[in-house]
Amino acid sequence: MQKFDSSMMDFEERVEIDDFESEVMERIYSKPLLIKRVNTTSQIAIVGANVCPVESLDYEVPENELVNEDWRSRRTVQIFQYILLKWAFALIIGLSTGLVGIFNNIAVENIAGFKLLLTTELMLKKKYYKAFAAYAGCNLGLATSAAALCAFIAPAAAGSGIPEVKAYLNGVDAYSILAPSTLFVKIFGSIFGVAAGFVVGKEGPMVHTGSCIASLIGQGGSRKYHLTWRWLRYFKNDRDRRDLITCGAAAGVAAAFRAPVGGVLFALEEAASWWRSALLWRTFFTTAVVAIVLRGFIQLCSTGTCGLFGQGGLIMYDISAAKVVYSTPDILAVILLGVIGGILGSLYNYLVDKVLRTYSIINERGAAVKILLVIMISLLTSICSYGLPWLATCIPCPTDASTSCPNTDVSGNYKSFQCPPGHYNDLASLFLNTNDDAIRNLLSTNTVKEFHVSSLFIFFVAVYCLGIITYGIAIPSGLFIPVILAGSCYGRLVGRLFEPISKLDVGLFSLLGAASFLGGTMRMTVSLCVILLELTNDLLMLPLVMLVLLISKTMGDMFNKGVYDQIVKLKGLPYMEAHPEPYMKHLIARDVVTGPLITFSGVEKVGNILLALKNTGHNGFPVIDEPPFSDAPELCGLVLRSQLLVLLKGKAFSKDRVLAGNKVLGKISELDFAKAGSGKGLKLEDLDIQEEEWDMYVDLHPIANTSPYTVVETMSLAKAAVLFRELGLRHMCVVPKSQGRPPIVGILTRHDFQPEHILGLYPHVRFQQ
Amino acid sequence: MQKFDSSMMDFEERVEIDDFESEVMERIYSKPLLIKRVNTTSQIAIVGANVCPVESLDYEVPENELVNEDWRSRRTVQIFQYILLKWAFALIIGLSTGLVGIFNNIAVENIAGFKLLLTTELMLKKKYYKAFAAYAGCNLGLATSAAALCAFIAPAAAGSGIPEVKAYLNGVDAYSILAPSTLFVKIFGSIFGVAAGFVVGKEGPMVHTGSCIASLIGQGGSRKYHLTWRWLRYFKNDRDRRDLITCGAAAGVAAAFRAPVGGVLFALEEAASWWRSALLWRTFFTTAVVAIVLRGFIQLCSTGTCGLFGQGGLIMYDISAAKVVYSTPDILAVILLGVIGGILGSLYNYLVDKVLRTYSIINERGAAVKILLVIMISLLTSICSYGLPWLATCIPCPTDASTSCPNTDVSGNYKSFQCPPGHYNDLASLFLNTNDDAIRNLLSTNTVKEFHVSSLFIFFVAVYCLGIITYGIAIPSGLFIPVILAGSCYGRLVGRLFEPISKLDVGLFSLLGAASFLGGTMRMTVSLCVILLELTNDLLMLPLVMLVLLISKTMGDMFNKGVYDQIVKLKGLPYMEAHPEPYMKHLIARDVVTGPLITFSGVEKVGNILLALKNTGHNGFPVIDEPPFSDAPELCGLVLRSQLLVLLKGKAFSKDRVLAGNKVLGKISELDFAKAGSGKGLKLEDLDIQEEEWDMYVDLHPIANTSPYTVVETMSLAKAAVLFRELGLRHMCVVPKSQGRPPIVGILTRHDFQPEHILGLYPHVRFQQ
Repeated sequence: MQKFDSSMMDFEERVEIDDFESEVMERIYSKPLLIKRVNTTSQIAIVGANVCPVESLDYEVPENELVNEDWRSRRTVQIFQYILLKWAFALIIGLSTGLVGIFNNIAVENIAGFKLLLTTELMLKKKYYKAFAAYAGCNLGLATSAAALCAFIAPAAAGSGIPEVKAYLNGVDAYSILAPSTLFVKIFGSIFGVAAGFVVGKEGPMVHTGSCIASLIGQGGSRKYHLTWRWLRYFKNDRDRRDLITCGAAAGVAAAFRAPVGGVLFALEEAASWWRSALLWRTFFTTAVVAIVLRGFIQLCSTGTCGLFGQGGLIMYDISAAKVVYSTPDILAVILLGVIGGILGSLYNYLVDKVLRTYSIINERGAAVKILLVIMISLLTSICSYGLPWLATCIPCPTDASTSCPNTDVSGNYKSFQCPPGHYNDLASLFLNTNDDAIRNLLSTNTVKEFHVSSLFIFFVAVYCLGIITYGIAIPSGLFIPVILAGSCYGRLVGRLFEPISKLDVGLFSLLGAASFLGGTMRMTVSLCVILLELTNDLLMLPLVMLVLLISKTMGDMFNKGVYDQIVKLKGLPYMEAHPEPYMKHLIARDVVTGPLITFSGVEKVGNILLALKNTGHNGFPVIDEPPFSDAPELCGLVLRSQLLVLLKGKAFSKDRVLAGNKVLGKISELDFAKAGSGKGLKLEDLDIQEEEWDMYVDLHPIANTSPYTVVETMSLAKAAVLFRELGLRHMCVVPKSQGRPPIVGILTRHDFQPEHILGLYPHVRFQQ
Repeated sequence: MQKFDSSMMDFEERVEIDDFESEVMERIYSKPLLIKRVNTTSQIAIVGANVCPVESLDYEVPENELVNEDWRSRRTVQIFQYILLKWAFALIIGLSTGLVGIFNNIAVENIAGFKLLLTTELMLKKKYYKAFAAYAGCNLGLATSAAALCAFIAPAAAGSGIPEVKAYLNGVDAYSILAPSTLFVKIFGSIFGVAAGFVVGKEGPMVHTGSCIASLIGQGGSRKYHLTWRWLRYFKNDRDRRDLITCGAAAGVAAAFRAPVGGVLFALEEAASWWRSALLWRTFFTTAVVAIVLRGFIQLCSTGTCGLFGQGGLIMYDISAAKVVYSTPDILAVILLGVIGGILGSLYNYLVDKVLRTYSIINERGAAVKILLVIMISLLTSICSYGLPWLATCIPCPTDASTSCPNTDVSGNYKSFQCPPGHYNDLASLFLNTNDDAIRNLLSTNTVKEFHVSSLFIFFVAVYCLGIITYGIAIPSGLFIPVILAGSCYGRLVGRLFEPISKLDVGLFSLLGAASFLGGTMRMTVSLCVILLELTNDLLMLPLVMLVLLISKTMGDMFNKGVYDQIVKLKGLPYMEAHPEPYMKHLIARDVVTGPLITFSGVEKVGNILLALKNTGHNGFPVIDEPPFSDAPELCGLVLRSQLLVLLKGKAFSKDRVLAGNKVLGKISELDFAKAGSGKGLKLEDLDIQEEEWDMYVDLHPIANTSPYTVVETMSLAKAAVLFRELGLRHMCVVPKSQGRPPIVGILTRHDFQPEHILGLYPHVRFQQ
C-alpha cells in the first residue's frame, strides 16, 4: 500500500499520460494497470456496430453525513412525492413505450403493405422484372435509410440492444447506449429495417427503445437547458435509474408481442441481474399500462383508421381454434422435435457468433463499408424472397368456400404470384409477406396441405441462413422473429413428416417448433412459455410447450451459452456471471488484488487528491483515519471519483488539517452529487483549482461512504464474486484478517472477477476443478 | 467480550437451567438472554393450531478445510451424479405432487358428490328433514374426522400452511412443520375438510403438501432404518433442502389450480425470499411434470373411470366462450369494482386476524376443544347451506333448449331443491354444490339472469362471513377458494347492478370480482394474473384483470399487510422483511449486539466447549486465533453448535494444545456434518465425554467457516438487515472499525433484527422517520 504524494511523481511522468487515453481509461477502469493483462476485447466494448468505452455503475446506497442530513431534511410530503413520482414515471414509460409500439406497427404495416401491394399489382400484370425492380428497390431504399441512420447518427442503435440492456442491468454502462440519438435511430431504423423485408424482428429494438425512454425520463429534464426540478434529484442515481430501465425493458417486450405478463417475466428472467418484489409490482404496472394502450389503439384501428394496420387483434397469432388432441406417438414426435430444435438452435448461436466476429471486423472500416454491407444483404434478401418462389409449383386452391384463394390482400395466406387463376404459390405466401404474416401463415391451423413439404424445406433453409447473416449488420435487428420464423417453419415441416402417425394439427407442431428454436437459442423458460401463450392464446398446449422448452434448452446448454450471453461476451462487456467459474474456488480475494492501492487521509491535501485523480483511473479511494483523528488507523470509508470532483468544485477547503464537516455541509448538498446522464458528469478539466489551493486541506468525512461492503482477505474468490453480484457492487473493500496491519488490503472491482484478469495472473488454475 | 472458562460457573448454576427449557432455547435462539426483552409472541411460534419451538436455518455455504477436502475428493462422476440427482428429485416431487393433486380431486369429488346426490334424492322425495339430517350428518362426520386427524396426529397440519412454508424459505424452521405425519394429515384432512362443505380451499394445503414431499425427499432415506445412501449427503444441508421445498411449493399450486406457470410465479413472488435463475428453471421443470401428470389423468378420467370426477378439463373455470367487449363506462365500473374489492379484501384480512387471535386462545385448551370448535362451525355451515336456499323464490327454467333444467347432476347449474318441476332454486345452485362448482356457476357466461340479485347478495354475505370464521379451526384450510368464491359472487353482483350501462358479460365481471378480492387479500400481482389466466383461459381479459389487481392491491396496502404476512406475524415467526423499518436507519449494527460474546480459541479445551454448549443457547461461536498460532489475535472463523457436537462425538482430542488438522480430518468427514431431519440432530445428551477428556484439547480449525460474512460495526442497521436477508444468513459477524481491538465485536442473528428486540432496547426510535 502506498500513500499518494505530489513529490512521488515528477512532471514528465504526469503529462506522459495522454489526455484522451486517460479520460477513456477513467471511464473504463478502476485499475488502468490491468489494461495490459486483460484480453483486448474487454478493454473497450463493441456497442452496436461501434467501439465504445464502458463504465461501471454504482448501485450501492452510500451512507454518509450528507445523505443522513438529506434524509433528515426530507419531510413526509417529499417522501410521498418521491413514491408518487416513481409510479408516475412507470406510467409515463408504459404510455410512451405503448405508443411507440403502436406507431412502429402502423408504420411497418403501411410501408411494407404498400410495397407488397405494388409488387402484387405488377405481378398480376405479368410485369415480372418491373415487379422485382419495384420490390428490390423499395427494400434497398428502406435498408439504406436504416443503415445511414445507424452509421451516421447512432452506431449504438445497431443490433438487438438486449445484450447491452442486460449488461446495463448487470452494472456496466456502455457509452451512449441509452442516449436520445440512439432512441431516435432505434425507432426509425427498426421501422425501416423491418419494412425492408429483412429477416429481423422488432422485439429487441423495442426492448432497447423502452430502456432508452426509461433512461431519459430517469435523467429528468436537462441541466443544459436549465430544466431541472429539485425533486427529480432523487432519481439521479444508478439505483433508481436501473429500476426504471428494468420497467422500460419489460414494457418493450409487452409492446412488441402484446404480451404484458411475458414482458415482466422477460425482464425478470433474462434482462435483470438483480430483482426485488417491489420492482416486480412496478414492472407489472408498467406493462399493464402498455396493454391498456395497445388494447385501446387496436380497437380504434379495427375501424380502418390506421391504414393497412388493424386486422390482428390483441393476440398476434391466434391458434386457439385448433383442437388440442395428442397421445403417446405425438409426445414421442414432440420430444424428437425438441431434441433436433435444441441442436439447431445452438448451431444458430454458434453461427451468429462467427458471423458477428467477421462483421465486427468489416464494420470497423467506417460508415460507408457498413452501409455497403447492408446493401449487399438487402439485395440478397430481395433475390431470395422474389427468386425462390419461382421454384414452387402452383397448387390448386382448396375447394373450401370460406377461404379466399388466390388472395390479393397484403397479408394473404394464398398468394397467386405467377400462378394461373384458381391456383396459388405456397412459397410466395411465405416469402412475399411481412415476417409477422409469414409466421401467422405457418401457425395457421386446419390447413394441413397448404404448404408443400419441399416449399417448407426451402423456406426453412433460406430463413435460417438469412437470419444468421442479417444479425450484426448496421441496422436495429431483433433476434426473436427470425428464430420464431425458422422454428415455426421447422415445426410445420416436422408436423408434415409425422402426419401419418400424429393426431396433432400441423399448426400446433409449428408452434412447438418455434418453442424448440427459442429454447435452443435464448435459453429462457418461464418467460418464453408465457410469451408464446400470450402470442397464440392456446392454454391447452401449455404442457407440450413446457416439455419442448425443457428439452431444447437442455440440448442447447450442452453445446454453448444463450445467444444474448454470447453477444455480451463477444462485445467485451465485463458482465458478472451468476455462477463463478469453478477455478475461483481455489483462489482467495487477496490473490487477485493487484496494483498499488491509493488511499486518502480523512482530511487530505487538495494537491494529493488532484494528482491521484489525474494519474490514475481509479474510481474509488479508501479513506483512512489516522491520529490525531482516531486512536489507531481505521477505515473511515470509501469516496468515489465523482464525489471528489464535486467536492473539489465546491472548494470547501481549509488552511489547516482540521475537521470541517459543517462547513462542507453548508457549501454542498446531496443534490450536487446527483448523477448526470451518461458521459455528462463533471470532469477533471472542469475544475479550476488555483496554485495556492493545492496545499490546502479538504475534509473527506462528510462524503465518504462510511459503511462500504467488506470481505476478509481469505474469503474464496468464488464466494466474493457471488456477493459482489448479488449486492450489485462497484467496489468491494478487502480487509485484513489479523490485527496490527493497515486497515485495508485492497479493492475488488468488476474487472478483478473477469476470467481474463484472473487467468492472466494464474494461468494454471484454469484446469483445476 | 468474555472467554468461557469452566471455573466461571459453579455446579448449581449449571444444573439450574432446566433440561427441557434449555433444549427449547437452543432450538429457538442464538441469544437466550434476549428472551426477557422480546415480545412473548416471537419466542415460540404458533404452528398450525399448536405452539412449537422454531429454529433458524443456515443457508450459508461454509468454507473450511473439511469442505475443501471433500470438494477435492469429488470426482467428475460424483458431480454429475449430484446434478442428475437434483433433477431426479425435481421429477419425483413433480410426479408425487401431481398424483396427490389428482387423488385429492378424485376423492373430494366422489365423497362430496355422493353426499350431494343423497341429499338431492331425498329432496326430490320431499323428505326435507331427512335430507338435512343426511347432509349435515355427512358434513359433521367428515369434519370431525379431519379435526381428529389434526388434533391428535399433527396439529401443525391445520390452516393453510403457506405462511409456514413462506417462513421456512425465509430461514425459519418451525418444529414438525414438514414432518411425515404433517404430510399425511394434510392430504387426508384436506380431503375431508373440503368434502365436508366448509368454505375452505385445497390450494394452501397442496402447497404445504408439495413442500412436505420435497422435504422428505431432500432428507433422502432414514438413518433410523439404516437406509442412507452416501451420495444423498450432498442434499443434507439447509440450502439444497430450501431449493427442493421451493420446487415443492410451486408444484403444489400447479397441482391445485392446474396452473403450472402460475405455480412457478407463486413460488417466486409469494413463497420464496431468495431466488436465482437456476432455481427458476428447476421449478419450471417440476411444474411441467405436474402439468403432464394432470393432463394424463384428466384424459384417463374423462372416460368415466374415476367415478364422479372427470368432467372439468385442464382448465378449471373456462370462460373463453364469452365475447370480450368493453368501452369507457365498463372501465369505470371495473375501477369502482377494484376499489371496493380492495377495501373488502383488506377488511377480510383484518377480520381473519381478529378471528385467528380468538381461535388460538380457544385451541390452546386441548384437542377436545379444538374438535368441538370444528363441529360448531360445521353445523353452522350446514345450516347456512341448507337453510338459506329456502329464502330464494323459485325461478322458471330458461327456455333455451341446450340447458338441462332443473338439473339433478352433482355439479348442476340449475338445482331444483324445493321447487316445482320446470323451476329452479338459484341459491341452492350455489350453496348445495362443491366450492369449485359454485365458482364455476358464478363465472358462467351468457347466463345473465340465472341468479337473482338478492340471491347473490345473500350468498356473498354468507360466504364472506363463513370464510372468515372457518380459517383457523383445526383442519387444513386454504384461503384462495374462499376468497375467489366471495370475490366472484361480489363481481357478479356488481355486474348485475351495472347491467343497464355495461356491455361486459356478468361472468366476466365475476372474474374481475375474484381478481379484486385476491388482490385485496393476497397482494400478489403477476402470479395471481397468471393463475387467473390459467384458471379461466381468457387472454383477452388480461388488461382488465391487470387493472383490477393493481387497483385492489393499492387499496389494500393502504390499510394492512397481505394475509400471509399477517399470519406469519401473528404466529410469532421471526420473519425477515424485505424492507427494513424506517427507524433502523438511525441505528448502527453495534447498537443491537447485546449479551456477553462467547468465543473459542483455535485450539480449545473440551471442557470449555461443553460448558458453553450447555449453558448458552448460542448456535454460532467465533473462533479467535491467538499467539502462538498467529502473530496477533485474528478472527479464524465461525463454528456452529451442530458442528461442535459432531466434532466432540468424533473425539479427535489431543493432550496438548497443538494443531491437529490431519488427525481430525482422518476421524471425521464432511458426511458426518450432514444435517438430519428437523429435530433429529445430535444433542448434547448424546455425547459421552469422560471426566479425563474435559481437560484435553480439540482443534477447531478444520471445521470453522473461515470466511463468515462480516460487517463493520458502524454500518447502519437497515443496510445490515438488507444484507442479512439477501444472503440468507443465520449469523453475521460484526467487526471493529479500528485496529488494536479484539477482532470481533459481536454476532447478529435474525432475532437482533426483529422489531420487538430493537424497540425493547431503544423504545424512542419508533417515532423517528
